[in-house]
Amino acid sequence: MSSNSFGKLLTVTTFGESHGPAIGCVIDGCPPGLEIAPEEFAHDLQRRATGKSRHTSARREADEVEILSGVYEGRTTGTPLALLIRNTDQRSKDYSNIAAQFRPGHADYSYWQKYGIRDPRGGGRSSARETTMRVAAGVIAKKWLRQRYGVTVRGYLSQLGAITPAGFDWSAVEDNPFFWPDAAQVPELEAYMDALRKSGDSVGARVDVVADGVPPGWGEPIYGKLDGEIAAALMSINAVKGVEIGDGFASVVQKGTEHRDLITPAGFQSNHAGGILGGIATGQQIVASMALKPTSSLRLPGATMDVEGNAVEVVTTGRHDPCVGIRATPIAEAMLALVLMDQALRHRAQCGDVGVVAPRIPGSLDG
Amino acid sequence: MSSNSFGKLLTVTTFGESHGPAIGCVIDGCPPGLEIAPEEFAHDLQRRATGKSRHTSARREADEVEILSGVYEGRTTGTPLALLIRNTDQRSKDYSNIAAQFRPGHADYSYWQKYGIRDPRGGGRSSARETTMRVAAGVIAKKWLRQRYGVTVRGYLSQLGAITPAGFDWSAVEDNPFFWPDAAQVPELEAYMDALRKSGDSVGARVDVVADGVPPGWGEPIYGKLDGEIAAALMSINAVKGVEIGDGFASVVQKGTEHRDLITPAGFQSNHAGGILGGIATGQQIVASMALKPTSSLRLPGATMDVEGNAVEVVTTGRHDPCVGIRATPIAEAMLALVLMDQALRHRAQCGDVGVVAPRIPGSLDG
Amino acid sequence: MSSNSFGKLLTVTTFGESHGPAIGCVIDGCPPGLEIAPEEFAHDLQRRATGKSRHTSARREADEVEILSGVYEGRTTGTPLALLIRNTDQRSKDYSNIAAQFRPGHADYSYWQKYGIRDPRGGGRSSARETTMRVAAGVIAKKWLRQRYGVTVRGYLSQLGAITPAGFDWSAVEDNPFFWPDAAQVPELEAYMDALRKSGDSVGARVDVVADGVPPGWGEPIYGKLDGEIAAALMSINAVKGVEIGDGFASVVQKGTEHRDLITPAGFQSNHAGGILGGIATGQQIVASMALKPTSSLRLPGATMDVEGNAVEVVTTGRHDPCVGIRATPIAEAMLALVLMDQALRHRAQCGDVGVVAPRIPGSLDG
Amino acid sequence: MSSNSFGKLLTVTTFGESHGPAIGCVIDGCPPGLEIAPEEFAHDLQRRATGKSRHTSARREADEVEILSGVYEGRTTGTPLALLIRNTDQRSKDYSNIAAQFRPGHADYSYWQKYGIRDPRGGGRSSARETTMRVAAGVIAKKWLRQRYGVTVRGYLSQLGAITPAGFDWSAVEDNPFFWPDAAQVPELEAYMDALRKSGDSVGARVDVVADGVPPGWGEPIYGKLDGEIAAALMSINAVKGVEIGDGFASVVQKGTEHRDLITPAGFQSNHAGGILGGIATGQQIVASMALKPTSSLRLPGATMDVEGNAVEVVTTGRHDPCVGIRATPIAEAMLALVLMDQALRHRAQCGDVGVVAPRIPGSLDG
Repeated sequence: MSSNSFGKLLTVTTFGESHGPAIGCVIDGCPPGLEIAPEEFAHDLQRRATGKSRHTSARREADEVEILSGVYEGRTTGTPLALLIRNTDQRSKDYSNIAAQFRPGHADYSYWQKYGIRDPRGGGRSSARETTMRVAAGVIAKKWLRQRYGVTVRGYLSQLGAITPAGFDWSAVEDNPFFWPDAAQVPELEAYMDALRKSGDSVGARVDVVADGVPPGWGEPIYGKLDGEIAAALMSINAVKGVEIGDGFASVVQKGTEHRDLITPAGFQSNHAGGILGGIATGQQIVASMALKPTSSLRLPGATMDVEGNAVEVVTTGRHDPCVGIRATPIAEAMLALVLMDQALRHRAQCGDVGVVAPRIPGSLDG
Repeated sequence: MSSNSFGKLLTVTTFGESHGPAIGCVIDGCPPGLEIAPEEFAHDLQRRATGKSRHTSARREADEVEILSGVYEGRTTGTPLALLIRNTDQRSKDYSNIAAQFRPGHADYSYWQKYGIRDPRGGGRSSARETTMRVAAGVIAKKWLRQRYGVTVRGYLSQLGAITPAGFDWSAVEDNPFFWPDAAQVPELEAYMDALRKSGDSVGARVDVVADGVPPGWGEPIYGKLDGEIAAALMSINAVKGVEIGDGFASVVQKGTEHRDLITPAGFQSNHAGGILGGIATGQQIVASMALKPTSSLRLPGATMDVEGNAVEVVTTGRHDPCVGIRATPIAEAMLALVLMDQALRHRAQCGDVGVVAPRIPGSLDG
Repeated sequence: MSSNSFGKLLTVTTFGESHGPAIGCVIDGCPPGLEIAPEEFAHDLQRRATGKSRHTSARREADEVEILSGVYEGRTTGTPLALLIRNTDQRSKDYSNIAAQFRPGHADYSYWQKYGIRDPRGGGRSSARETTMRVAAGVIAKKWLRQRYGVTVRGYLSQLGAITPAGFDWSAVEDNPFFWPDAAQVPELEAYMDALRKSGDSVGARVDVVADGVPPGWGEPIYGKLDGEIAAALMSINAVKGVEIGDGFASVVQKGTEHRDLITPAGFQSNHAGGILGGIATGQQIVASMALKPTSSLRLPGATMDVEGNAVEVVTTGRHDPCVGIRATPIAEAMLALVLMDQALRHRAQCGDVGVVAPRIPGSLDG
Repeated sequence: MSSNSFGKLLTVTTFGESHGPAIGCVIDGCPPGLEIAPEEFAHDLQRRATGKSRHTSARREADEVEILSGVYEGRTTGTPLALLIRNTDQRSKDYSNIAAQFRPGHADYSYWQKYGIRDPRGGGRSSARETTMRVAAGVIAKKWLRQRYGVTVRGYLSQLGAITPAGFDWSAVEDNPFFWPDAAQVPELEAYMDALRKSGDSVGARVDVVADGVPPGWGEPIYGKLDGEIAAALMSINAVKGVEIGDGFASVVQKGTEHRDLITPAGFQSNHAGGILGGIATGQQIVASMALKPTSSLRLPGATMDVEGNAVEVVTTGRHDPCVGIRATPIAEAMLALVLMDQALRHRAQCGDVGVVAPRIPGSLDG
């Protein structure tokens, strides 16, 4: 019921502020017997971390995960896993000058109106620092999905400002700091980001995330729809302003004969639906996409109000990504993985763990 | 926890199949003392109903709401409201020939893979018939929001295939069967729909929904974000494939200086955020948009598979809207109203009912 | 989240007032494929019904269950089952004189303080009429538990005022109107109840309920303990004031060497624990007991206050059981069955459906 | 939804094993602005701690609480409070010899059957060590209830084996290591415990807990009843086997004329109900009682089985309380306080924060 908890059966509760003593999470409902070691979190946390390249914030976060509970002799015991990361790089002085102002585009004003009090250090709870724990929890979900069902979850940056991929190659994605699927465009992206940083401005982005191998039948009807939960999961990521499943907004101008995915015993003929019909997986690739707004923290001055109601000008002098979308890829993967694992557990609760009903339609011909 | 329930404190549980004996809902958590009469549901149910005009399905649904509980002498008592609508127009023969086939673009196959059994009559539980009860529940939420906080929720069709509004006038929306905000375009829409119906094809649409008067502070951080819950709520509506808050996917190509809504003591200078920052309302207009796919039930034949695994051709002969998006407007309003009322109750649980903190930023100049 | 809903994965939501148009429930999360017909509810509803004998209230409730949804061709489809019972015997005149008074021992005053409004007709929502739907939902749970796992749930009256069973025979329980396990005592009970009715007074009772065949492992730690949920389930029944698991309050005076159930490869040596250790089933018989207070509605006058704050005397002239505990047996069975089915689904969600780990301790030698 | 979480709006999630690196909790939903400092936890943690006197376990737990999040400049911010206690006194060697055996009366066997794996160090998750975090969370709830509503929560040991209080004086309770309400009996209790310890055996106990000042109206009907939630809360405490509200099991032999609490404008005439009718507070003192079984860990040998299925004899050599009930008092207080705070938040969500309706019945004359 807590709004800092995610998931019905695999429940992840996160806590912590950007510049408090620590951030952490409690993961409950994980099946027993899963092997997990503290060092397994490093890869995805590094992918998410600022400081990965000069194209994201220079801030360095050590992000050492300590497992506080739920693991015995290297395996999950079925009791809650608690993960803790100490905040080592707090530099609260960067933010002290804005404690009395509402930064435009930030949650400063809305938090203050809600609670009448706010932690201004680094954005407090509203900082994207919180997503570190989502990525950590996602490591558990990805591993279990892969081991138990052969499901894989991957993502990539599908748009940076107005730039879109010219080609597509999964193997390129992890070889550049942009999670970009076309290696040939990387110099162009670097030049774009350098110019953007010099200008002091920022830009939006789009991230696509897909899951392969999801068995038909995962998901639930009505208010527990797989696509509904993916939408909530992605929209809950900082800076996200839009979510699509399959063809998304492109469906608006499509005809029914274009959109509907015809079926043959050899497989679906297309995947406009993004692998979900009626809220339940069809067995095709799950495809989701999200839009991220440009960073609001800019060193270009902007008008705002202070807590006394006076007009003031705000300039953000700290370290900030000119495009928060770049490092959102592993966060989106984590959220999709958490939704899928939760739905997998819910599915076997109600329907057992018997696998699919015959006849089964093979995955679509195109993915 | 039930996936047929929506909301944490205002909890709406719906039940019923398209061609079963009845559909209904249980609304729990409604504050006591709200005046409500059975006839108050008629207006929005009529707006949602097929048969409103020749541009939606000819099927006529009487949709008489019976209040079974929770009301005494015309006022809510604080105990669960149960609403019931008998299904009077079932014509199950329209669907009998497709019981053994999986209609492309429908939930037939995914439900069958999940449950190993499905109710083929009119789509069973996956039919948009279920949304009738959302609209009914939304009537309660709209009324309470308006009476208690002066919040209004309205929607309109913002795109029909490739057609977009040339002008905008709220007063036009309720005066045409398309919920279209420019009266001058209505003949064009009628001609478009007539041609579409003749062709046997269907088309997608976009619906926008807004809330005015939402106090700053409603909403919750992280996984209970107001925008995250709106996304889930809209994505849970049949045929929806995408959701946007504020500028949505347009944010991808925006610069930070364009997107961030500057603040002056006289008000926000713009509303690119759609009234939500950090998951919490800013006091500006809440703006959301959703994409609906074209109807998949077509009288144009399409390839599919039957339950034996054989390739077959499917033709849908029943009554169907060539654009389901048209009547989705009141459904989107209902879902937004339900999210807001639930968040309002949650807000006063944690933070009391004290209203806003000074200084308050007036609503944006442009909305 | 609704307080009118019970269970996490098998979720039962009830609605309706004693003298409103109808009572009903929505059962969500039931596995698909379970055969169920409307007439299957009759047996347990009859067991619960007033009018079973002269020893409970003379009020006759037809209690015809209509299945509104969730069943297709006689089997559950995995979507919500809605059950409806029309209230046919309302006689609201019996209660009209007490609308302005707070009956001692009833929820009149507490409901009124909570909501500022209450439905006085027959106790409204606080009437034991609501438990009819628990019994109906329990029919589903009992059947599934028996078919899927061989689990049986049974109960009996274990104390009526100061009278306790002299002997114990399960086969006697269903053959007398008291659910009493010793047939020889039935005349004594009848005489006692006749005298009680003549006196105008009422008396308390105790009901025991047991489950056989529960696999070791069902249940969850900490706040989802099987015994914790049984306690909440039984305490939620009208008039219940105490709950015990296994030896219950007798444990207070026991020594550790007495209480701990020793184990041999041939089985547990005793069952003081009532089949639950650490919140999780041991595989022994689950044993719970509950105390019910005497009926508060009496034709003997009692002091109270009216809604204006004046001292008044109240006399209840309607039909009332002099011992509500007698017909509580099927209600207790239903609640225990609902808890067990919910925990069974939760167990297979997290731990799969693989059955027990070797070595398994056989059920206790004494039950 | 997590079974390691407690409460709907004030949600406490605990984690940690007895001999793991740490135990902790996340408290979500706390209203903003509550002053709280790490040292405020010390008093109740000390009351709960083993080592308080020679009559409970000699194990010394430092139990330094670190606040990891949710507090800024000494006040709660409305975001999750995370509390952490490092386990400093682990001595896992005490338990190594029982890793392969199932201790009678412990959760060893049931956990192993559930999960197929268990953490044997000090009982792992099933240890009463977990209740430390309940007490810590209860400190928050007690403080908020007292400051916001003037509600106080207190408890005492009401039975030790066969010994019951001869007199009653609240002021005595905190002045002896037994939480006993009659100072004159303390020497008798000490002698009894010394003899018990020498014998190697253990004994059960009863704890009573009461809340004063609870406004009428807190609580919810049906499955969210205040008494139902108290029952679940108390039964979830280690070793608890029974729960009573008000007269509890004594109600079984009472007549209706005895039990019903008559009302006069000057107040209730008695409080057999324990302050709750229909699941909702009446404004009288809330009274609950719980039975605790005797400690199962004994140095007197007992028969059991090992994980290979062999008959073995178990002797527990570690430090254990001969009566776990003695230190259960602050745990029971914490659970009652958490239930009340959660219900208080739920009440103001649905019904606002307006206080009581006139006329109000004063608290009962006897408490």
